[in-house]
Amino acid sequence: MTAGTGTTGGPVHEALAALELVDHHCHGAVTGDLDRAGFESLLTEGDAWPGVSPFDSPVGLAVRRHCAPLLDLPRHAPPDAYLARRTELGAAEVNRRFLRGAGTGVFCVDTGYAPHPVTAPAELARTADATAYEVVRLEGVAEAVAAGGVEPDAYAEAFRTAAWEAVRRPGVVGVKSVAAYRTGFDLDPARPSPAEVTGAARRWLARGGRLDDPVLVRHLLWTAVDLGLPLQLHTGFGDADIRMHRVDPALLTDWLHLTAGTIPVVLLHCWPYQRQAAYLSAVFERVHLDVGLTLHHVGPARAGAILAEATEITPFRKLLYSSDAYGVAEFHHLGALAFRQGLAELLQARLDADELALPDALRLARWAGRDNARRVYRLPGGAMDDG
Amino acid sequence: MTAGTGTTGGPVHEALAALELVDHHCHGAVTGDLDRAGFESLLTEGDAWPGVSPFDSPVGLAVRRHCAPLLDLPRHAPPDAYLARRTELGAAEVNRRFLRGAGTGVFCVDTGYAPHPVTAPAELARTADATAYEVVRLEGVAEAVAAGGVEPDAYAEAFRTAAWEAVRRPGVVGVKSVAAYRTGFDLDPARPSPAEVTGAARRWLARGGRLDDPVLVRHLLWTAVDLGLPLQLHTGFGDADIRMHRVDPALLTDWLHLTAGTIPVVLLHCWPYQRQAAYLSAVFERVHLDVGLTLHHVGPARAGAILAEATEITPFRKLLYSSDAYGVAEFHHLGALAFRQGLAELLQARLDADELALPDALRLARWAGRDNARRVYRLPGGAMDDG
Amino acid sequence: MTAGTGTTGGPVHEALAALELVDHHCHGAVTGDLDRAGFESLLTEGDAWPGVSPFDSPVGLAVRRHCAPLLDLPRHAPPDAYLARRTELGAAEVNRRFLRGAGTGVFCVDTGYAPHPVTAPAELARTADATAYEVVRLEGVAEAVAAGGVEPDAYAEAFRTAAWEAVRRPGVVGVKSVAAYRTGFDLDPARPSPAEVTGAARRWLARGGRLDDPVLVRHLLWTAVDLGLPLQLHTGFGDADIRMHRVDPALLTDWLHLTAGTIPVVLLHCWPYQRQAAYLSAVFERVHLDVGLTLHHVGPARAGAILAEATEITPFRKLLYSSDAYGVAEFHHLGALAFRQGLAELLQARLDADELALPDALRLARWAGRDNARRVYRLPGGAMDDG
Repeated sequence: MTAGTGTTGGPVHEALAALELVDHHCHGAVTGDLDRAGFESLLTEGDAWPGVSPFDSPVGLAVRRHCAPLLDLPRHAPPDAYLARRTELGAAEVNRRFLRGAGTGVFCVDTGYAPHPVTAPAELARTADATAYEVVRLEGVAEAVAAGGVEPDAYAEAFRTAAWEAVRRPGVVGVKSVAAYRTGFDLDPARPSPAEVTGAARRWLARGGRLDDPVLVRHLLWTAVDLGLPLQLHTGFGDADIRMHRVDPALLTDWLHLTAGTIPVVLLHCWPYQRQAAYLSAVFERVHLDVGLTLHHVGPARAGAILAEATEITPFRKLLYSSDAYGVAEFHHLGALAFRQGLAELLQARLDADELALPDALRLARWAGRDNARRVYRLPGGAMDDG
Repeated sequence: MTAGTGTTGGPVHEALAALELVDHHCHGAVTGDLDRAGFESLLTEGDAWPGVSPFDSPVGLAVRRHCAPLLDLPRHAPPDAYLARRTELGAAEVNRRFLRGAGTGVFCVDTGYAPHPVTAPAELARTADATAYEVVRLEGVAEAVAAGGVEPDAYAEAFRTAAWEAVRRPGVVGVKSVAAYRTGFDLDPARPSPAEVTGAARRWLARGGRLDDPVLVRHLLWTAVDLGLPLQLHTGFGDADIRMHRVDPALLTDWLHLTAGTIPVVLLHCWPYQRQAAYLSAVFERVHLDVGLTLHHVGPARAGAILAEATEITPFRKLLYSSDAYGVAEFHHLGALAFRQGLAELLQARLDADELALPDALRLARWAGRDNARRVYRLPGGAMDDG
Repeated sequence: MTAGTGTTGGPVHEALAALELVDHHCHGAVTGDLDRAGFESLLTEGDAWPGVSPFDSPVGLAVRRHCAPLLDLPRHAPPDAYLARRTELGAAEVNRRFLRGAGTGVFCVDTGYAPHPVTAPAELARTADATAYEVVRLEGVAEAVAAGGVEPDAYAEAFRTAAWEAVRRPGVVGVKSVAAYRTGFDLDPARPSPAEVTGAARRWLARGGRLDDPVLVRHLLWTAVDLGLPLQLHTGFGDADIRMHRVDPALLTDWLHLTAGTIPVVLLHCWPYQRQAAYLSAVFERVHLDVGLTLHHVGPARAGAILAEATEITPFRKLLYSSDAYGVAEFHHLGALAFRQGLAELLQARLDADELALPDALRLARWAGRDNARRVYRLPGGAMDDG
């Protein structure tokens, strides 16, 4: 595994460049070759629109600047040259280069979102010369239960059983919910009663479609509490399915009070609510956060600014790294690079101003890039590097 | 026309200084002379308060720093000297200097807000040695319909007809809504039924006053969709009439889904929700944004920071320039200067860090300052500069 | 009194270092010695959690960097050494060093929150060689009225009388409400009727507990208007009792309209809503703001960034300084230092860019650090330094 390429000098840059990251939340990379339309559609959280290339965006610039060199192209290579070289090398080689270039030792892979054929965790690990774990998306489990046929009054138990079975498979280290996409967080925080769940299941099973009933989403979140594993929650930035004003993580406060002392919760993405997430991480023992997805979309040019907001009051045990890469392995690489570069820039500026001492900077970098995830997900290696 | 004065060196500064901007949303400049109270009241979105001069604010500092030299005064001239010189020169000469100093080739003038006697678009164009187009404020059209007398069940058709007549006049390139000031955006997104509109019109026509009925505001927004022209929407920052928490543009998401594939929508001002606006512009094909009004109020000292947030994930085709200047021609100048200076600073920093290549920086500047507006409003010159 | 230590060169740094601040909102310092657990629990707005030291946070770093030298320790001293030295010196000497080191001439002390034995205002003043005034927390007054026994229909009058008595004591300069912690600001803005108040009082007095009835909270806010003194309102950042999405100060807009022309209102803390607070201060004559509590929690490394957002459009008469220090005197010092350093950094950058002239920078610093508070609270010295 080669280290990230984001070093620009100084001991923190060097330490972060050499650090094998734990990417605690990502997805697979597409295994087949992509044509221009296919590649562009994976570059954006929007759709690919006529006359507006996704290359003409911050993430497009970042790909041309930071990914082109791994394909033996000059920095800032034009999109046509980039795509031609990508095709020439083939998906397997492209994936290999970016996944190894990411300098990531562990990937925790959310296997519940895969509209394209993508690398399974084991294949991702093999390609990256890394270790992979799995994160189970609970909405997918619930929808599989519904698809398999279940009576409304048996739904709760069937879902719980299926979730238990899913998480006790080897390599599963956490669960995830996309409640943000389904209802947002402005929910009654209380655990729904069995009768409420049965009634809601009756309506949902009759209607079909994805799980978006508020009672069943609440039930899913409380089932996650029962499972006992860390829960990843999508918050903030995503595609057009999001209603941004309903995915402010602060809306979870009542639920966090009710579930105090139970499972670790990791708020994913967070932007533009990174400060609200930081507040929650400062006042709730179990709450952690990352700014995955955001970092590669804004690119290294703004990663430091986003991380500076996300860490204003955040305890150093609470910041994790994720790429949230999906589809193109460029993002597994770019997420890691933006994280390394942004965090190093932020820490180096504080070292230069003597606001921070070097051992603290190095410890904070190591914790955020690797050890906090090891600790939250109880991954091997966590204890010995915990100091 | 002279170029803006915001150059501080480097090719991007030079290119932006030389670029004739399209100010896609502004108002007229007051044609008469202003006394101190009159001038100060136009400097602030608040009122002029006893003992608190609006000169003692970021925009006041920016006027003294950047506008004084165009009146032959030293930078940072004191308010008394500034006002005395302004009076000495007279409104016509002051307007001429600032409007030409703005380096703006095209002004799209919202003619629906004019509590003072201000320059009509043609006069603004003549004074600035530029071209002017008109933007029709739909609330004004609806209120004129009501003032002219109409039966409730004829309101919808009368408003539609009046709006059609207003927009088919020569030089009209878009429409605008101040729904933000009337109801905010937390509205039922669906098109109201004819019966709902008639019922709401009955109540409003009986009550009188400005158009602030939620059903009629929804109807107005849907009428804009029917008109087919780009729709400018005030969002975020404004005067004390705003309820800030109800003008987050994210509240428009459901309406944007329902109106997908129809008219271009341009979110104006946006601050402090520039990131929410950026998100919408990244996931909805038709959504564009500017940070007009904000830029001159924060001044060039913060314009780069605001633009950096507004462009974090914004596709380069989606950012437009506007001054939203009203009343004092200083703002037509200052808006342009803050935009040029802020954008140049932001782009130059990325060039210096090799996060961006010069041709991309120049293209992005040209698009944001001119070509995106040409494209959205189908202005002459759009095609040839589109590359 | 010694000046703050945040000078890093330049005339603004020097002027701010020499300026005796008015800390318009703070609390007392704990008078007894603190063990590690006691000290750590006062460092955080969360709780002290097993395995996660509050020293491992931005405020912990800031204490080690900026407070250690006042205890004769090297910068960045480790927590163990810091705590040992603190114990060695004893609480009285530690408090004396930090309170004098703060360079603060006036403290306005909220006496309504004191879960620990803390310095009373007179003792704080004596220790700091400064002047102290008192701010009366209205929820405490109401709860004392309830605890003393009152009939529901006599509650309104009893509360009003008790509040009048509390504020007419010598040295009282303002009142405070923690409505943010009790209901948030999404309240009916209208003054409740006597019958509503009696009904709500009946329910509250029967139930007991802290004052968190929405009608009684509204009544409290309107009683503050009647008292005629400046009202401090907690907004934004606080402990886990906050529901962040309900303490956006923009939610107060309707109430601010209804109470126009009455008492000064000072929005405290504000983060992450400092821009919303700035907007309110720009459009409402009576609205002022600070970023107290936030500044020491983010530390000097981010204080400039927060102040830059908080002042983007804020009239210079509207920004005040507070530490909101509670418990450990480190915070009285650190708040002052972060304010001085952040504001100096921000102003110096604008001087360097010639966006600001030195006399304006010095005036702005003097106003924000001292004169605006003197003016709002009508403190002695206000008039002569007002220029």
